[in-house]
Amino acid sequence: MNKFPPSMRKCLEALQKLPGIGPKSAQRILFSLLDRGPAAAGELADAFTSLAQGVVRCPSCRAYKESEEPCALCSDPSRDGKLLCVVESAADVLLIESTGEFRGLYHVLHGLLSPLKGLHPEQLGLEVLDGRLEQAAIEEVVLATPPTAEGEATASYLASHLAGKVRQITRIAYGLPVGTDFQYVDAQTLARSLSGRKAFT
Amino acid sequence: MNKFPPSMRKCLEALQKLPGIGPKSAQRILFSLLDRGPAAAGELADAFTSLAQGVVRCPSCRAYKESEEPCALCSDPSRDGKLLCVVESAADVLLIESTGEFRGLYHVLHGLLSPLKGLHPEQLGLEVLDGRLEQAAIEEVVLATPPTAEGEATASYLASHLAGKVRQITRIAYGLPVGTDFQYVDAQTLARSLSGRKAFT
Repeated sequence: MNKFPPSMRKCLEALQKLPGIGPKSAQRILFSLLDRGPAAAGELADAFTSLAQGVVRCPSCRAYKESEEPCALCSDPSRDGKLLCVVESAADVLLIESTGEFRGLYHVLHGLLSPLKGLHPEQLGLEVLDGRLEQAAIEEVVLATPPTAEGEATASYLASHLAGKVRQITRIAYGLPVGTDFQYVDAQTLARSLSGRKAFT
Repeated sequence: MNKFPPSMRKCLEALQKLPGIGPKSAQRILFSLLDRGPAAAGELADAFTSLAQGVVRCPSCRAYKESEEPCALCSDPSRDGKLLCVVESAADVLLIESTGEFRGLYHVLHGLLSPLKGLHPEQLGLEVLDGRLEQAAIEEVVLATPPTAEGEATASYLASHLAGKVRQITRIAYGLPVGTDFQYVDAQTLARSLSGRKAFT
């Protein structure tokens, strides 16, 4: 690393902080940028400047939005204002949107409850969520946290926090992934799949 | 991709042009940057701005250097000025430097001869190399292009181009990689290893 001129070193260090990029990938990216000429690095510099300056959290749903524009999710009149889905991260919103199965609103927690990581209820934006439940016509809150220890703990906390504030609180279903071979499913997933069984329609 | 606000889309597009980064990794990087706050994207923007503005090719060896400073390789008086190694890319210089086995100078081709890719001799900076051979006390040019069809063709071309301009032209050795199991070596490498045999010392 010390062999590099300072500008290249700075770039390698910044790249290595990104998820999935180690020293080798960072070098590969660095040299591919240099080989493509200054315009390539300039394009990235521009993109990251816009990102740093132009993208903010929506004050209502807490997903990311362009700072000068209304939130595409909150301001869409075609969405179902009676339904609100609580997710861990802004990336989860995209995943759910990609299914086409959900047309309601969102609340992004930006984390899960985790005393070890020092993440406490006040960081999950619950006062914003409470405000929306009071003002808007939301009838059902869907808890879509992951089926992990932290996800379950967060869902339980939210369920008791939201009790009485909304007509219905639901949790997304956990069970066998579509297309799975029965032999390859772990016992816990199978157990959840059995306990979560529904009437055959 | 159309679900993203423009600043995020721009960033995803720029990231996906980098080697080894596909749509999924680009999204993961984007959200990790957003979650880390505007300073994280700002740091990357700064780093890429410095890279675009501060790093240039050394006019002599054609490796990358800080634009305001002399080339660390060419200006180092402790290096052996009689020896010059020709490599395909600036990344190769680093690899050779990491061995500690070579203490001479470099010439970076920034490509290999490839009529298909439209890369012709005049793009390999040979006029710079010729100038250095005339002016400096270089006695040996080591051709360190890779053992591929293009690498071999480039080495052959360079050997005839440089004939008479320098006392000695050598090619790095190709053979069995250190630590290889004999059973797993391909026939071509073994053939090169046999034809390149040396007296046992």
